[in-house]
Amino acid sequence: MPLTRISLARGKSPEYLRALSDGLHRALVEAFDVPPDDRFQIIHQHEPGELVFERHYLGGPRSEDFVLFQVTAGRPRTTGTKAAFYRYLVECLAEAPGIRPEDVMVVISTTQLDDWSFAGGLASMIQDGGGAR
Amino acid sequence: MPLTRISLARGKSPEYLRALSDGLHRALVEAFDVPPDDRFQIIHQHEPGELVFERHYLGGPRSEDFVLFQVTAGRPRTTGTKAAFYRYLVECLAEAPGIRPEDVMVVISTTQLDDWSFAGGLASMIQDGGGAR
Amino acid sequence: MPLTRISLARGKSPEYLRALSDGLHRALVEAFDVPPDDRFQIIHQHEPGELVFERHYLGGPRSEDFVLFQVTAGRPRTTGTKAAFYRYLVECLAEAPGIRPEDVMVVISTTQLDDWSFAGGLASMIQDGGGAR
Repeated sequence: MPLTRISLARGKSPEYLRALSDGLHRALVEAFDVPPDDRFQIIHQHEPGELVFERHYLGGPRSEDFVLFQVTAGRPRTTGTKAAFYRYLVECLAEAPGIRPEDVMVVISTTQLDDWSFAGGLASMIQDGGGAR
Repeated sequence: MPLTRISLARGKSPEYLRALSDGLHRALVEAFDVPPDDRFQIIHQHEPGELVFERHYLGGPRSEDFVLFQVTAGRPRTTGTKAAFYRYLVECLAEAPGIRPEDVMVVISTTQLDDWSFAGGLASMIQDGGGAR
Repeated sequence: MPLTRISLARGKSPEYLRALSDGLHRALVEAFDVPPDDRFQIIHQHEPGELVFERHYLGGPRSEDFVLFQVTAGRPRTTGTKAAFYRYLVECLAEAPGIRPEDVMVVISTTQLDDWSFAGGLASMIQDGGGAR
């Protein structure tokens, strides 16, 4: 149920973007309690000057490979679940496409179950049997 | 007061995008209690690989015409209002520009009235008589 | 801790975009209680037709220089703080890059401290001494 906007500098290969997408999804499934077929992501590739980030604030040093994930989640998660997700995400991305943990930033926002319509004009999580997800 | 980000694959005509914008706005006005002149939308057109979506999760099958609406609302709506909006939105978009209901996904986030400044440096909904909206 | 998406029409110079970024950051630091080195922004430049806005709703008239800031904040702020931020932001942007207050729109969303991982797979605000920010 999460929707994630992924922002990074333009210039990576399609294979890199695919591995980025795969790594995020793997971390969501393994550590954020997301069903394997619940995969919705939007990648925003940015020109020089469009992605503004401080290189050393609360971590880093960040490099030109900086990537920011803005996750909109469908229901609350505990602090423990969020912390585990952050940890596992940097592991997945270090493996492929090979991103340094210092370059991975995440922000989570939370909505309610009736805030989602996946298709067909239905409030998918509370109609049509979707509630169990 | 809602702000909506509309994400779809690049390649549609200006007329298509205009009809998409019109259809969303009509649904917001008719079913989501939005004033007719309260229209703020941002369209993001994506390259191949940037829009990642599962074709069959909780609906579908989704096609290359998949469109995702992320609505930031200014105040809470009931589940009934949200459900009616989802239903009416797919009707409007089926009419024009002619989108299959299976290709329409919506996510709503909610803010508070003092989270909006429409112009002029004012907290528009609580200053300058905007509160009635 | 805020992350801000800045949306405007494509066509401005790099200097203009830099001044826009600087003006926002100055307003956040001076009026929204943000540390000076806590700077994360994403600029989205839009083609004609992608940025849809009503010219006269609750303010305006808006022009082609319309800019929309969507701020995701890490913790709640009072109405007074938000109002002061809106006011100061238009002042900063009027000074440079020279934007009319009528063209400045802001929407704020709020998250929780454990919703942020700035780097390294840590829940930065509650681990590693970040809580004091």
